[in-house]
Amino acid sequence: MSSERRISKDELERFCRDALTKYGMNEQDAEITGKILTITDAFGIHSHGTKNLHPYLQKIRAGGIDPKAVPEFVREGGAFAVMDAKDGIGMASGYKAMRKAVELAKKSGIGYVAVKNSCHFGAGASYTNLAARQGLLGIAMSNTDPNMVVPGGKGMTLGNNPVSYAFPRAGGHPVILDIALSATAALKINKAKTYHESIPDTWMVDPDGRPTTDPQYYQNGGALLPVGAHKGYGLSLLVEALSALASGGNFCRDVKSWCFDLPSKNRVCHAFLAVDPSLVCPDGNFAERAEELADYVKSSPKAAGTSGIFLPGEMEWNRYDDGCKNGIPLPEDVADSLRKASEETGLKLNWSDSANG
Amino acid sequence: MSSERRISKDELERFCRDALTKYGMNEQDAEITGKILTITDAFGIHSHGTKNLHPYLQKIRAGGIDPKAVPEFVREGGAFAVMDAKDGIGMASGYKAMRKAVELAKKSGIGYVAVKNSCHFGAGASYTNLAARQGLLGIAMSNTDPNMVVPGGKGMTLGNNPVSYAFPRAGGHPVILDIALSATAALKINKAKTYHESIPDTWMVDPDGRPTTDPQYYQNGGALLPVGAHKGYGLSLLVEALSALASGGNFCRDVKSWCFDLPSKNRVCHAFLAVDPSLVCPDGNFAERAEELADYVKSSPKAAGTSGIFLPGEMEWNRYDDGCKNGIPLPEDVADSLRKASEETGLKLNWSDSANG
Repeated sequence: MSSERRISKDELERFCRDALTKYGMNEQDAEITGKILTITDAFGIHSHGTKNLHPYLQKIRAGGIDPKAVPEFVREGGAFAVMDAKDGIGMASGYKAMRKAVELAKKSGIGYVAVKNSCHFGAGASYTNLAARQGLLGIAMSNTDPNMVVPGGKGMTLGNNPVSYAFPRAGGHPVILDIALSATAALKINKAKTYHESIPDTWMVDPDGRPTTDPQYYQNGGALLPVGAHKGYGLSLLVEALSALASGGNFCRDVKSWCFDLPSKNRVCHAFLAVDPSLVCPDGNFAERAEELADYVKSSPKAAGTSGIFLPGEMEWNRYDDGCKNGIPLPEDVADSLRKASEETGLKLNWSDSANG
Repeated sequence: MSSERRISKDELERFCRDALTKYGMNEQDAEITGKILTITDAFGIHSHGTKNLHPYLQKIRAGGIDPKAVPEFVREGGAFAVMDAKDGIGMASGYKAMRKAVELAKKSGIGYVAVKNSCHFGAGASYTNLAARQGLLGIAMSNTDPNMVVPGGKGMTLGNNPVSYAFPRAGGHPVILDIALSATAALKINKAKTYHESIPDTWMVDPDGRPTTDPQYYQNGGALLPVGAHKGYGLSLLVEALSALASGGNFCRDVKSWCFDLPSKNRVCHAFLAVDPSLVCPDGNFAERAEELADYVKSSPKAAGTSGIFLPGEMEWNRYDDGCKNGIPLPEDVADSLRKASEETGLKLNWSDSANG
């Protein structure tokens, strides 16, 4: 292990912004993207944060992301809108779509925005948190290129489509959930693959569609299992319906991997929902009652030998608070990727040890 | 095993309607309730169908359900509404709330109705199907009295809050999912308990909060595990937010068991959402593309030794089609419960064997 590397939130945001403007993106979109990638690292969701800046830059260079895309609302009415993201970066379209959902919800109680022709939007939590910080409940979801098996099938048919929500509570940071619909993260399987460890037989199937404990089948004919079998399968189709079918965008088979196929457009679809409790909640005390619910959950009896009961997102907020105060810790793989981005763009990156060129 | 008992859809609906009107309910609510309970049996979801008519009647008699309740929209605006169900039967309030969500969606693209002070609404699929039959995507959810453990905790803290959705497809019955957020149904654990079988250690925890393979702990200090651990836990809180927090109704600790505590008001909360693709979908071909998605999933490669790939709800629709044609099969426990309702109300029930009367 190398020494711990930390970087200030501002510096990480600045670096991302400068790198993206250097690659043709306007200041505003670059700033939005930088903030979203940085808060994702601050939450400790490093697989979806600034580690991906370098591949996004490569994808721009390869033609898979149009840095000059101007997302367009192609349909609008009442409490909904449909956005064509025009193959721009997912963070810019995601941010604008969530903002629109919030605007619609402030008018109508609920707002819904479906997005087509977008690119990987990173962590859904970064969008739902935007809604919660304004006192709203936010929901974000996206389809992905297929990596899950359908029950009864074999091979990669469904996306492990991520779903996130956030809602405010009176006594602390918002409650935030950010999950994928597979039984477990591909990351964990890849780790087991690297270290030649066996995995629980509920995580994936082998090339014949049979549950397996051998992670070597991952990306070798195997496929992730949906969480709760038919439950995750069914929820994955709901994400397709609200994102791809409703927007007229691509589903499953027509969504390319954003990172393994850099020159191709990703063409992923998202859906954003927002609910404004200040309009809906009859007693106007949503955040106070959310705090009561949080207290109730946190103070429920502890299991033998437990490390405690955490609200959804609580561990992420603890990391965030620490990162804002002491700098965001950058694991080796994130630092490596940022170093590549630094080399490629010729932009300096100031972190707290001597590892940066 | 007794001989197979079947009953016509019309006769089962009629019996429920007549029983409920005899217990003070108006014709319309009794008819709605009869239809909802009957379609649930037709789907084969017998745990949530007419088996519960008898306990609902008992609950009315004990004062836990007000058969004369008139649900009221206490707040309304834009694309949302909040209903106070006034402790009436859940099927009547659920039906009216879903119909309202559909009406709002037809105007605004999306509609959202939160319901408080309701009673057990049975199977969510019976409401979401109402939306899908009109060409809309419907979502229904409800909180329940606690039966799940929170990760890190012990005992019953969270409800395994059911979530259902349905959306239309061009080539057949709607796609319908209806799940609870526990790893498995309490029913399966009860069955294992009855037959003294062991269960997988992912289904429940013992009184100390440790995963157990012993089903005897169910309703003896144990608790169900959420599906996918933190995933089901987080989604359970989303249901609380959209149903109980948004409506100002009761959550978790203040929701009583509808069936084990007959004299108490259940005070459960629901949330219904509807999306009208005819407004939202830019190309106006939602159901056609849903059919493409269904085809894609159904025709994906089959696993070794599989019994086939089924769409969410497909097995339920197969049972429904058979039930409409040949009569709805009534398992022993459902027939027993209907027999009790028949004895209690003095109303005859005509099924296809000689067991009744």
